[in-house]
Amino acid sequence: MNIGILGSGVVGKTLAGKLSSLGHGVMIGTRDPVESRARTAPDSFGGPPLSSFLAEHPAVALGSFADAAGHGEIVLNATSGLGSLEALKLAGADKLAGKVLVDISNPLDFSRGFPPRLTVSNDDSLGEQIQRAFPEARVVKTLNTVNAYLMVAPGMLAGGDHTMFVCGDDADAKRIVESLLREQFGWQDVIDLGGIAMARGTEMYLPLWARLYGALQNPMFTIKVVR
Amino acid sequence: MNIGILGSGVVGKTLAGKLSSLGHGVMIGTRDPVESRARTAPDSFGGPPLSSFLAEHPAVALGSFADAAGHGEIVLNATSGLGSLEALKLAGADKLAGKVLVDISNPLDFSRGFPPRLTVSNDDSLGEQIQRAFPEARVVKTLNTVNAYLMVAPGMLAGGDHTMFVCGDDADAKRIVESLLREQFGWQDVIDLGGIAMARGTEMYLPLWARLYGALQNPMFTIKVVR
Repeated sequence: MNIGILGSGVVGKTLAGKLSSLGHGVMIGTRDPVESRARTAPDSFGGPPLSSFLAEHPAVALGSFADAAGHGEIVLNATSGLGSLEALKLAGADKLAGKVLVDISNPLDFSRGFPPRLTVSNDDSLGEQIQRAFPEARVVKTLNTVNAYLMVAPGMLAGGDHTMFVCGDDADAKRIVESLLREQFGWQDVIDLGGIAMARGTEMYLPLWARLYGALQNPMFTIKVVR
Repeated sequence: MNIGILGSGVVGKTLAGKLSSLGHGVMIGTRDPVESRARTAPDSFGGPPLSSFLAEHPAVALGSFADAAGHGEIVLNATSGLGSLEALKLAGADKLAGKVLVDISNPLDFSRGFPPRLTVSNDDSLGEQIQRAFPEARVVKTLNTVNAYLMVAPGMLAGGDHTMFVCGDDADAKRIVESLLREQFGWQDVIDLGGIAMARGTEMYLPLWARLYGALQNPMFTIKVVR
């Protein structure tokens, strides 16, 4: 399947590497792909620059946000939350229309330090803002509750005995995404919370995630819903 | 140990019953104990009125908020979040000074229906509001992430293989509360998140809790932090 990934940070690269290794036709989209490829400095987490990643993953293509959105039958929003709406606007509503848009972003504002604030919460969520801005996209919120490595390899932790959430207004889109989570990435426990407004719940978990990260000093954790 | 419990809802009664059965001297405090005892209607969850509970638990005393706060070496705030600051004001800053004040409340507003909104979040929390309003109390936030039955009997679910959080500014108070959680109630995994400002994290988990309750249709669940 052709998959477009918006964003070339650690989330975008990790998803691209995994999906490409599974045989999907992956294109990463950035605001300025020429500049993205030319960068030689490490990324913001100290990882290798995008050019090194692309050299190691020759099957992964690089294009603009619009190129990647046009390429994908499924489009993954792996941009940082503060820039997601603008990135999606650059991708283009026409390119997103009718497509499954997997929203992984969180509305985290680190401008006042760690732990971050949410820029939207309680009565609204970034997932809903995206669905409202792109009403013809079939937005499914998921994967935003774990770090990038766990997203694509949940079995790295406790043999995968923990929980992922999905929500969205389009039942078929959720089925497609749940199948991706289970069959491609290995998620064993996926809870469907309901419509896209349920994104308020998973995004508002991030303040607890951030504080757990502070307490545990290690991002390789997540939650299991015990029931 | 003498324990004062503010609030006679399902949380207050459940805590009172358990702590009394363990041999502690328990007093429940309400705004108007005469009226509370005289009520004959079921409580808001359909449970028996307070008078029936007191008849079945003759060792549990009933008094005003101030009586219960004065009685307890430890005071548990089991009032509903919207009324907590006022209940504590009625209890009296002098009665709370120097005491461990276990804050179990959540700032949930159901006035617009289910799932509830938070009345404070992101840049502040109810736990912090309480600590600021009663600076001489030693506030520890805990137990606010599970339903009343799990609070006192975590082993009812998965043999207790799930997680409780504590936070607060007073390290000794947290040690006392953690010992209560582990030795009296049976919590096996307790994570200390840090100071009382970490209450933002556990209170902001409630929107996810509420949506999980909606999806699972059963309040007997909680989360395990898998790491």
